[in-house]
Amino acid sequence: MKKRLLLAGFALALGAGYTLTAFSQVKPEILVKQRQAAMTLQGKYFGPIAGMAQGKIPYSADVIARNAAYLDVLNKMPWDGFAESTKDVTVKTAALPAIWSEPAKFKEAQEKFQSAVSRLVAATKTGDEASIKSAILEVGKGGCGNCHQNFRQKD
Amino acid sequence: MKKRLLLAGFALALGAGYTLTAFSQVKPEILVKQRQAAMTLQGKYFGPIAGMAQGKIPYSADVIARNAAYLDVLNKMPWDGFAESTKDVTVKTAALPAIWSEPAKFKEAQEKFQSAVSRLVAATKTGDEASIKSAILEVGKGGCGNCHQNFRQKD
Repeated sequence: MKKRLLLAGFALALGAGYTLTAFSQVKPEILVKQRQAAMTLQGKYFGPIAGMAQGKIPYSADVIARNAAYLDVLNKMPWDGFAESTKDVTVKTAALPAIWSEPAKFKEAQEKFQSAVSRLVAATKTGDEASIKSAILEVGKGGCGNCHQNFRQKD
Repeated sequence: MKKRLLLAGFALALGAGYTLTAFSQVKPEILVKQRQAAMTLQGKYFGPIAGMAQGKIPYSADVIARNAAYLDVLNKMPWDGFAESTKDVTVKTAALPAIWSEPAKFKEAQEKFQSAVSRLVAATKTGDEASIKSAILEVGKGGCGNCHQNFRQKD
């Protein structure tokens, strides 16, 4: 009984934090944390398959298909985190001002990335290793690279 | 031409980091960062729908269906981040030693969470608000809460 109460309390507490944010804005620092989390996971699932496309990691069609499917969902998650409210946030971020001064170009870069991932997902269904590798490289160059080039501070 | 070279360099650099890790282990600190990223995104997509289930946020069937589908993918992502190598990591983590001392119980908690999310996804397809709300609360209690109760340090 005590445990059940605790768990119910947990669910309530978790929901409670969102009461305010539903009608106002999620705190800018949280938005930054969430968008960085999406980027971290995209790196987790893209990095190894980029290595496979370059022949640096043994090729695994299964891993590529799984990671491509994950990326196809993850690539929808970062963008609402780049809200105007995060423009002058004090937490560490590599986001460049161009994100907010050139929104159409930023949007276009997102779409280019998402199309490249869609083409990769389609390629994984053909089973053709050369097409799959080339689709992976295109996600890196035309997707990640293209956007980071213009909208992310260099390391 | 210069830009093309830069972008090619980017893709190579991204893949390069994974050359070593393919045959050895991803660094424990990176694993922690990746698993925390998965938890952050699960919070992003679960929090608001928990608020909806509790009537604290206006109910939106569309948001619930979208978030449930996201959670159904995100819930596959944290677990490989709890590798043995991260047991004594020095970066900040709320992971409790029970994760490694009670692996079967930890695995069971993951599966309970994943089933709860599957039942939520199924519920969203019925369109029945009461079932959907109850399925959301069950993800919170039997999923997040159950696992955090035993395997995560209290805040």
